[in-house]
Amino acid sequence: MSRGSLFVVTGPSGAGKGTVLGKVRGELDRLHYSVSLTTRPPREGEEHGVHYHFCSPDEAMGMIASGHMLEHAEYVGNIYGTPEAPVEAALDAGLDVILEIEVQGALQIKAKRPDATLVFIAPPSFEELERRLRGRGTESDEKIASRLNRARDEQKKVGEFHYVVLNDDADLAAAELRAIIVAQRCTLARRADVLPG
Amino acid sequence: MSRGSLFVVTGPSGAGKGTVLGKVRGELDRLHYSVSLTTRPPREGEEHGVHYHFCSPDEAMGMIASGHMLEHAEYVGNIYGTPEAPVEAALDAGLDVILEIEVQGALQIKAKRPDATLVFIAPPSFEELERRLRGRGTESDEKIASRLNRARDEQKKVGEFHYVVLNDDADLAAAELRAIIVAQRCTLARRADVLPG
Repeated sequence: MSRGSLFVVTGPSGAGKGTVLGKVRGELDRLHYSVSLTTRPPREGEEHGVHYHFCSPDEAMGMIASGHMLEHAEYVGNIYGTPEAPVEAALDAGLDVILEIEVQGALQIKAKRPDATLVFIAPPSFEELERRLRGRGTESDEKIASRLNRARDEQKKVGEFHYVVLNDDADLAAAELRAIIVAQRCTLARRADVLPG
Repeated sequence: MSRGSLFVVTGPSGAGKGTVLGKVRGELDRLHYSVSLTTRPPREGEEHGVHYHFCSPDEAMGMIASGHMLEHAEYVGNIYGTPEAPVEAALDAGLDVILEIEVQGALQIKAKRPDATLVFIAPPSFEELERRLRGRGTESDEKIASRLNRARDEQKKVGEFHYVVLNDDADLAAAELRAIIVAQRCTLARRADVLPG
């Protein structure tokens, strides 16, 4: 059995990473969804261990200091990060691993793991992005303005990514992300062990 | 509008290239199927201009000599090749182009067009390949033996390809080929013109 592939799915806050991944989740087997750690408080409906491992700033800093994080980033005053051990265990078990992370963390992964497949989920426009962020109804005008500025900066990094999925229609975007994962499974390296010799 | 991508689909005779491509054909838009030229006689049900441009050896040699072929190969006593002009026209029109060709021709394309995406369709086993070739009921034992020897040689070239689709179940194989095409459409180069700036 070949080792799994690491997929990094990122994009500006509000581009719809979570929605798109939610639609892929039920449709492909052999996927492991990495659960990020965060110091931000849970939003309505978010569960500990499912959407995030929610933790204190002290806990997060401890994990970073002891080298147990694959990537981490501070974003709008909170720490986000990916514990490394569960990712490695899943890859070794032949599962593909999906990391849904911030752009800053995605670029850390790119530097550390040149074999990772990087997918940027982009909003169809910045006007639509603002509309989506306001639609959440959970954040102040100041935080929304901060996210929009951040999104424009993040968009400038798109050249670092392998794939771009434009999330205008979430079903189409999910079909594209699924295709990217399936195609990766068909690469020569992943198929070497099943070929007739 | 970005330029289309060139896909080369190859594999041993009997691996099921035609069957798999037939299933993809109806399911994706913006695809152009290049029609190869061949000097071999039509098989039952094959139409001129649809499955192949059937031509005489003299015509084929003339096209090759005048530099109008993207690739060509001799295979079991017949010439096969791809006229270049229709491929270029389709790519310029933003269509993805599929070339279904022999392995020898695929490697010529790889050398000439490093941006082409190369897909190798492999049989699940050589025993199954022999069964399929005999099932056609159109060829002598000698020709079948020649094709099987050729298939074993071709399989050794699999390391030259980007993707490998194992054609055990033709529907699954077609889904994989479709995913490879969709994923290519999501690459950064193909998306540059639709991103919010």
